[in-house]
Amino acid sequence: MLPEEIIKKKRNKFELTSEEIEFFILSYTRGEIPDYQMSALLMAIFFNGMTNAETVALTKTMLHSGVVVDTSTIAGFKTDKHSTGGVGDKTSLILGPVVAAAGVYVPMISGRGLGHTGGTLDKLESIPGFNTQQTLETFIELTKKIGTCFIGQTKEICPADKKIYALRDVTATVESLPLICASIMSKKMAEGIDGLVLDVKFGSGAFMKDTAKAKELALALMAIGKGYGKKVVAMLTSMEQPLGRFAGNSLEVFECLEIMKNKKFMSADGVDLCADTRELSLLLSAHMIFMAGKTSSFEAAYALATEILESGAALKKFEEMCLAQGGSIFALPTAKSSTVVQAKSAGFLASYNVEKIGLAGIVLRAGRQKTDDVLNLVSGIEFHKKIGDPVQASDVVFTIHGDEPQLFAGAMEMLQGCFEISLQKPNAHVLIKETLY
Amino acid sequence: MLPEEIIKKKRNKFELTSEEIEFFILSYTRGEIPDYQMSALLMAIFFNGMTNAETVALTKTMLHSGVVVDTSTIAGFKTDKHSTGGVGDKTSLILGPVVAAAGVYVPMISGRGLGHTGGTLDKLESIPGFNTQQTLETFIELTKKIGTCFIGQTKEICPADKKIYALRDVTATVESLPLICASIMSKKMAEGIDGLVLDVKFGSGAFMKDTAKAKELALALMAIGKGYGKKVVAMLTSMEQPLGRFAGNSLEVFECLEIMKNKKFMSADGVDLCADTRELSLLLSAHMIFMAGKTSSFEAAYALATEILESGAALKKFEEMCLAQGGSIFALPTAKSSTVVQAKSAGFLASYNVEKIGLAGIVLRAGRQKTDDVLNLVSGIEFHKKIGDPVQASDVVFTIHGDEPQLFAGAMEMLQGCFEISLQKPNAHVLIKETLY
Repeated sequence: MLPEEIIKKKRNKFELTSEEIEFFILSYTRGEIPDYQMSALLMAIFFNGMTNAETVALTKTMLHSGVVVDTSTIAGFKTDKHSTGGVGDKTSLILGPVVAAAGVYVPMISGRGLGHTGGTLDKLESIPGFNTQQTLETFIELTKKIGTCFIGQTKEICPADKKIYALRDVTATVESLPLICASIMSKKMAEGIDGLVLDVKFGSGAFMKDTAKAKELALALMAIGKGYGKKVVAMLTSMEQPLGRFAGNSLEVFECLEIMKNKKFMSADGVDLCADTRELSLLLSAHMIFMAGKTSSFEAAYALATEILESGAALKKFEEMCLAQGGSIFALPTAKSSTVVQAKSAGFLASYNVEKIGLAGIVLRAGRQKTDDVLNLVSGIEFHKKIGDPVQASDVVFTIHGDEPQLFAGAMEMLQGCFEISLQKPNAHVLIKETLY
Repeated sequence: MLPEEIIKKKRNKFELTSEEIEFFILSYTRGEIPDYQMSALLMAIFFNGMTNAETVALTKTMLHSGVVVDTSTIAGFKTDKHSTGGVGDKTSLILGPVVAAAGVYVPMISGRGLGHTGGTLDKLESIPGFNTQQTLETFIELTKKIGTCFIGQTKEICPADKKIYALRDVTATVESLPLICASIMSKKMAEGIDGLVLDVKFGSGAFMKDTAKAKELALALMAIGKGYGKKVVAMLTSMEQPLGRFAGNSLEVFECLEIMKNKKFMSADGVDLCADTRELSLLLSAHMIFMAGKTSSFEAAYALATEILESGAALKKFEEMCLAQGGSIFALPTAKSSTVVQAKSAGFLASYNVEKIGLAGIVLRAGRQKTDDVLNLVSGIEFHKKIGDPVQASDVVFTIHGDEPQLFAGAMEMLQGCFEISLQKPNAHVLIKETLY
């Protein structure tokens, strides 16, 4: 098989065989096909797409380019959640402990933040001592013992995806549905799980801005997961505003701890600013618990998750998990400085440009532009208004937190352009658009 | 400017500015943008095309990536011909001397054969001692002195095109109209000519099989040339059958010498097998002579070209040019062995698969598969039938010539599948479809 002939075949809209896909991907991973041929194929896939059979073959090849975690010694249902990413999206830190406390295993392999979206690993690493770089043996061991464990992608898992993703990033071939699906699902299938809950975001802070596109992505991801015989549920959830009260690594851990301590944080308008984080975490947890057969209905699973959260069992599980992974939760660092961004006119908070808020986070070094950027884990942004809230001129919309005040001016200027005030009260913001089974 | 943003812009169907094109191409040529980003851009161009402005900017950038030959010291009109390539396409060897003998300068920078098509440089190098690797100074010197000179592309000319073409070849991005146009025209504009005649082929042996596509290519090439203020004429000519009597390097030089000696070679059916080579060479020459203002009408230019050919002045000019470039025309080598391919049934020669004939030439080492393949310059194929000629069972259709009889069986088998016999006389074959001004 000649690489250029395979590129030409895809370019000319013919379906590649699974043998051709396997040959191309594995040869590339071994360094036998150069980057320039892979990037030409990726761009041809961007334009001509892939059939379901091709996407499944691509996922399978990437999955088997490395090891599949052997979870056979964990006696019980194993489940995970994947989010397509957003700003303030911190539900993993709550649902892991909640679901584990319900007796369902959550072996979670997470990623780092990139661009405007955050990453679970960075958040956890803001806890002093927390070690996300565990061996797969320890990962299994801790999942068995605690019920949940959070680690980063290891070298053994999906090396093909790692190499291809880095290339897509610099060749404008990220935004391709089959490539996104294969990348996500190969890594999730490598975890050795029985079920997966997908949190597919839409809105200004989501990868897919549009709900129809988000649904298309959700259905494509589900089809692959189901093709592997896994239970899969997908929720389409809003990223039209940041989730919860904070975006920023240690700030988000703090928010999750507060929620697990059953605390609320009421805004000046009498709104609990963490309610959406709590609600989405409970819903995702309930899907994972119900999927595992722990309850006879989704409603019962939701009730169980709520009870676990309110009783403090989730907090206890979180502390247990931190301790097992070396983290000192009581030493969570906080920022030394802060400043505020105020509204200039009165009305109602009409909309956010959430992606731009994420980019302001990069200015504060709460997020990264490039994979090798080093973060400042205490910096971030606090949100004081939800869509629909009344706004008076000079009301605080954002608080910027951080240790590097010299970065504040740039972030302030960006944040000033990240929200719109309307005179008419906007339609109510809907967090959950649809749940797909 | 970020390379990935430029790729994304083209991918998303926006028009690139000339600054973006220049930045990308020149950075790539200097090795500052890697192959994998260039191949992604090339594939995006393959899918989304380029506007006229983009194609002109690309041509201009590639042209100015190297030197433009300074022909200002040559006092007179300078012209060249470019053919999109075919089998037995040897007109340059005749028109160069004819046009030079008419007092019009022909500084010709030619290429080598690749795939099923032949190249002028290989043909000339079958003449013992002929040196196509001249410096640009000698090139100018000899053009001034003799009126025509044939050299290969030097390192100084269009280095961007050289690097990009090699990448296109292995990334399935050759077949893109704007990329083809920019590649051809940047090299031609680098010759410092005043006028250009394009021989755009259509048919089974052409790059563009279809006449409509060939015309599209011709018009696109003309638009660029005219944009540079050059006189440009394009002929759409048939590659539905090989041109003339031979395909193969020294065999084609032999055919041209015979034509310039005013000889005919009549087939068993009473047809002059070299008539089409002669006619096309005279027509192309006439366009070049008329374009230079040497005659007051095209007809007069055609008459002048014919007179130059028939009087032996063209042959004299050819010998002069060979001598100046070190070639011993009287020592032209010939093949030691031959074999024939015969028809198996009677009827009329209905059609040829000319591309496949060219590929049989590669088997005989008369052509090359890859740029570093070494040729056997005496081998090739002789054609005994033109489309429409009567065929008796066992009539010879092809003679294979060569020094390596072990290669004959493979070529014979291929050639057996390169023609079709019909019982009905086919429509007359038309050599010249259209001339565009």
